[in-house]
Amino acid sequence: MFAMDMRQERISLLGLGSMGRALAGALIGAGHEVTVWNRTPGKAGELVARGAREVSSVEEAVQAGGLVVVCLLDDASVREALAPVVRGLTGRDLVNLTSGSVQQARELAGWLGGRGVRFLGGGIMAVPSTVGTEGAFILYSGARDLFDRVAPVLSPIGRPQWAGEDPGFAALYDMAALSGMYGMSAGADHAVTMLHAEGGDLETFKRAVLGPWMEQMLPIIVAGADPSATVPEEYNPGMQAVGLETILAASGEAGVPAELSGHLRASLWRMRRAVDAG
Amino acid sequence: MFAMDMRQERISLLGLGSMGRALAGALIGAGHEVTVWNRTPGKAGELVARGAREVSSVEEAVQAGGLVVVCLLDDASVREALAPVVRGLTGRDLVNLTSGSVQQARELAGWLGGRGVRFLGGGIMAVPSTVGTEGAFILYSGARDLFDRVAPVLSPIGRPQWAGEDPGFAALYDMAALSGMYGMSAGADHAVTMLHAEGGDLETFKRAVLGPWMEQMLPIIVAGADPSATVPEEYNPGMQAVGLETILAASGEAGVPAELSGHLRASLWRMRRAVDAG
Ligand SMILES: NC(=O)c1ccc[n+]([C@@H]2O[C@H](COP(=O)([O-])OP(=O)(O)OC[C@H]3O[C@@H](n4cnc5c(N)ncnc54)[C@H](OP(=O)(O)O)[C@@H]3O)[C@@H](O)[C@H]2O)c1
Ligand SMILES: NC(=O)c1ccc[n+]([C@@H]2O[C@H](COP(=O)([O-])OP(=O)(O)OC[C@H]3O[C@@H](n4cnc5c(N)ncnc54)[C@H](OP(=O)(O)O)[C@@H]3O)[C@@H](O)[C@H]2O)c1
Repeated sequence: MFAMDMRQERISLLGLGSMGRALAGALIGAGHEVTVWNRTPGKAGELVARGAREVSSVEEAVQAGGLVVVCLLDDASVREALAPVVRGLTGRDLVNLTSGSVQQARELAGWLGGRGVRFLGGGIMAVPSTVGTEGAFILYSGARDLFDRVAPVLSPIGRPQWAGEDPGFAALYDMAALSGMYGMSAGADHAVTMLHAEGGDLETFKRAVLGPWMEQMLPIIVAGADPSATVPEEYNPGMQAVGLETILAASGEAGVPAELSGHLRASLWRMRRAVDAG
Repeated sequence: MFAMDMRQERISLLGLGSMGRALAGALIGAGHEVTVWNRTPGKAGELVARGAREVSSVEEAVQAGGLVVVCLLDDASVREALAPVVRGLTGRDLVNLTSGSVQQARELAGWLGGRGVRFLGGGIMAVPSTVGTEGAFILYSGARDLFDRVAPVLSPIGRPQWAGEDPGFAALYDMAALSGMYGMSAGADHAVTMLHAEGGDLETFKRAVLGPWMEQMLPIIVAGADPSATVPEEYNPGMQAVGLETILAASGEAGVPAELSGHLRASLWRMRRAVDAG
């Protein structure tokens, strides 16, 4: 759908960390005219070979014209990189794909908006290896007209997903989704650590048990996730609390570091609160 | 595959909690001759209407002959229910589908084995609503010959999955897989709580962001789960630690109870340990 109305576009990308390099690769691959800058030089070799232009200052990157896309470590690095050039950005379009908090995104939008920069906050729902692949998507929030214009241009990095007019909402959805992912990750890491400590076969476990089980439960868990204090009675919070205590005790006996069990303590707290609520 | 050599079999099921009732339903549906017992009477109505025989004591359930399947709250309830009848079980086959620890399963196997009972420990990788459906599977460990015999009989409740000769290994794989699931669940609950606190649209978030993102990441996370202390450098633990601190701070500012962030603290601990390890 987006591929249909895609044209070549001039894009300046600030940041060639592992994510920035993946973004640049996908944008070059789509035929865009890409100018790249990175604080530490020497990261653009392969990209230049594929047609990118490397510049040695943010000023030059901005002067190349076109859409400015920023993908740096965090909000502080974005501020630091943009501060010297912010006056030259008046009237330009800027998309920030650096992860940060809702508040940081809102303040950045205010800072840039005050200088006449049109701004979209973004959140990359991909890892470098999945950028540009089927499942990848990118959250955008802020100026709706800017989204409508850049969505086709940036679709090669991942399916554009609108998150609302509030420039902080891409960050909000991004952080919340990352929290979900870190839960999966904490659970899987604890699971294999426990299995390993007890001498179980890791490959069989991951392939035949952990993967299929988490796949089976994922849609049920996402559908059932609920911000209210209650856990539905059919979820049997009392039984789940007993089960969680058993896993916690077994994990300790197996010698798994207590710090790895944070997801179990969070779940136990939730089940106990539900039991107390009646 | 298992359905092909399935015959009618006599099964006595102890326990009609929400899981026991789901198991009984699937076994009756497959044409087995099912006798049911529950400590508190009055839970077998629908099952009796579908052809189950209800008895009022464990003794009667055992006297009905055939395979004994146990699905009670926890190990203590299994011990309590079986203690009065354990002598009458000599020479019989018993499958315990009650969740418990590795140690509890091994001790139960020893206790019953000492009385000439053939024993399989089990772990149900399903919830009541998915029992007997495509994704459901059941872990079994212990006497391999007993597994080979009962796997086709019990396949209507879920695909039988062998977990090894150690009678505790079904419990080990079960607990570890549950830990993975509780991670997903802690992550998803925290995500929606944070989103709700900031006024985001829950339905859009679950359908268009959280679900697709967790689906995209699940195979990557399971494949990458590793019990060693290290996090591969390409995972960029330093960048992830920064991201986790941002999410934790934002979550606190949004007023999300700190107890719900256990999965984030577990992940942060892991990333910091990886950074410290170089
Ligand atoms: N990697 C992922 O899986 C992933 C997934 C989704 C979102 N993201 C987000 O994408 C962003 C970039 O991640 P990444 O994986 O590319 O991180 P990374 O590999 O650590 O790269 C960090 C980038 O930020 C630059 N930088 C850091 N401090 C700076 C400063 N003060 N001024 C200018 N540049 C600075 C670095 O430049 P130097 O080379 O000079 O150090 C480098 O280009 C982050 O916000 C991350 O949360 C990453
Ligand atoms: N529900 C699930 O999603 C799920 C998923 C996988 C595994 N499991 C496991 O399946 C088992 C049963 O779960 P459930 O959901 O059916 O739990 P439940 O609905 O709470 O039922 C508990 C059952 O245990 C019985 N019981 C408790 N204490 C007893 C005692 N001292 N003596 C005899 N019977 C006793 C109860 O009898 P009364 O009716 O007399 O109280 C009831 O039949 C648990 O080990 C659970 O971990 C459950």
